[in-house]
Amino acid sequence: MLTLNQPVLDQNDRLAERNRGYFKAKKLLVINVLSSPGAGKTTLLQKTITHLGKRLRAGVIVGDLETDNDAKRLRATGAPAVQITTGTVCHLDAEMVARAMGQLDLDHLDLLVIENVGNLVCPASYDLGEDLRVVLHSVTEGEDKPLKYPPIFSNAHVVILSKMDLAAATEFRRDEAVANIRRLAPQARIFELSSKTGSGMDEWCDFLVQKQQDAAR
Amino acid sequence: MLTLNQPVLDQNDRLAERNRGYFKAKKLLVINVLSSPGAGKTTLLQKTITHLGKRLRAGVIVGDLETDNDAKRLRATGAPAVQITTGTVCHLDAEMVARAMGQLDLDHLDLLVIENVGNLVCPASYDLGEDLRVVLHSVTEGEDKPLKYPPIFSNAHVVILSKMDLAAATEFRRDEAVANIRRLAPQARIFELSSKTGSGMDEWCDFLVQKQQDAAR
Repeated sequence: MLTLNQPVLDQNDRLAERNRGYFKAKKLLVINVLSSPGAGKTTLLQKTITHLGKRLRAGVIVGDLETDNDAKRLRATGAPAVQITTGTVCHLDAEMVARAMGQLDLDHLDLLVIENVGNLVCPASYDLGEDLRVVLHSVTEGEDKPLKYPPIFSNAHVVILSKMDLAAATEFRRDEAVANIRRLAPQARIFELSSKTGSGMDEWCDFLVQKQQDAAR
Repeated sequence: MLTLNQPVLDQNDRLAERNRGYFKAKKLLVINVLSSPGAGKTTLLQKTITHLGKRLRAGVIVGDLETDNDAKRLRATGAPAVQITTGTVCHLDAEMVARAMGQLDLDHLDLLVIENVGNLVCPASYDLGEDLRVVLHSVTEGEDKPLKYPPIFSNAHVVILSKMDLAAATEFRRDEAVANIRRLAPQARIFELSSKTGSGMDEWCDFLVQKQQDAAR
């Protein structure tokens, strides 16, 4: 019975390509943000949107099993945010995103951020039509997560080491973590960020501005 | 097509009951340990097994997508540990556990610890035949995880607030977190632990010894 997952994924892949074409026509940079629960996705996105200011007009689609806590937190930045509640489903899919984006005025946005359900496994298989898959890896999670969750890291365009302000308190071995990321995701650009202190935010935001210019070309 | 998940779960539930009967006959206390990736399951289990010493003879079955890092770490305590690698599957199931337990000498154990794949969504639906479902919630994940991941919390027998040593550095609002746990899991016993400092370990280990005595009755 489980072999029937394949047609479900094929269908998702087709819808994802349709989303990708639509985003391209709207000259949007679209990022799919993935991590464990509690790695700091929402806080990082709040800080990123604020730090970008007028450089990029951002909108957000955010997925959770329950609550619209994250959409509320993100709206406080002034950005429009649509919450998807998935019930028991452990990932967003392309159809959910297609429905949610109808509630955003995409003509007046430059950056669409999709904050996925907190999960290091299921979202790996679901293309949403994004330009960049951004995986957050908090320093509190230790150094070996890329080795233990290969699919999500091996498809990442960007890996963000988050909560760097806690690196000392957690005795985080930074070089070992970076080597593990490099092993699974040699293609990925790595950023080291702290939402709390703001360290690394300039570089990260400059990167997004550059990528949006590429996407709008 | 997705409705076919139901028969898959029915099959799992039957195998889980068979495991439960087998464990009962062996007078084992069996705990299913669940959390996000990086919440500190393996470290807590290392410390628990060491702290229990001769009071309970423990064995471990541990699940990860890839690597046997965790089994190696757990064997360093002297306890036998079997690693299950699930590939792309985001949870253990009753059949995987049944196969793995054949590699342990259950007649010489009192406590069987099953460390599930790090995931706050998928493992919620899969009974393994355990006596207790133990959910770890690290203080670094913030206060609202029970509200955002209801299925896993609403079935918990025990919720452990882990990494309490980081509560100050992360500005963790303990009372708010406990209220959220109480709301989703009023049935759950709550422990506040630090694997690093050892705080709370006596109470947690006494609880396991008591539960093992109940299970062996």
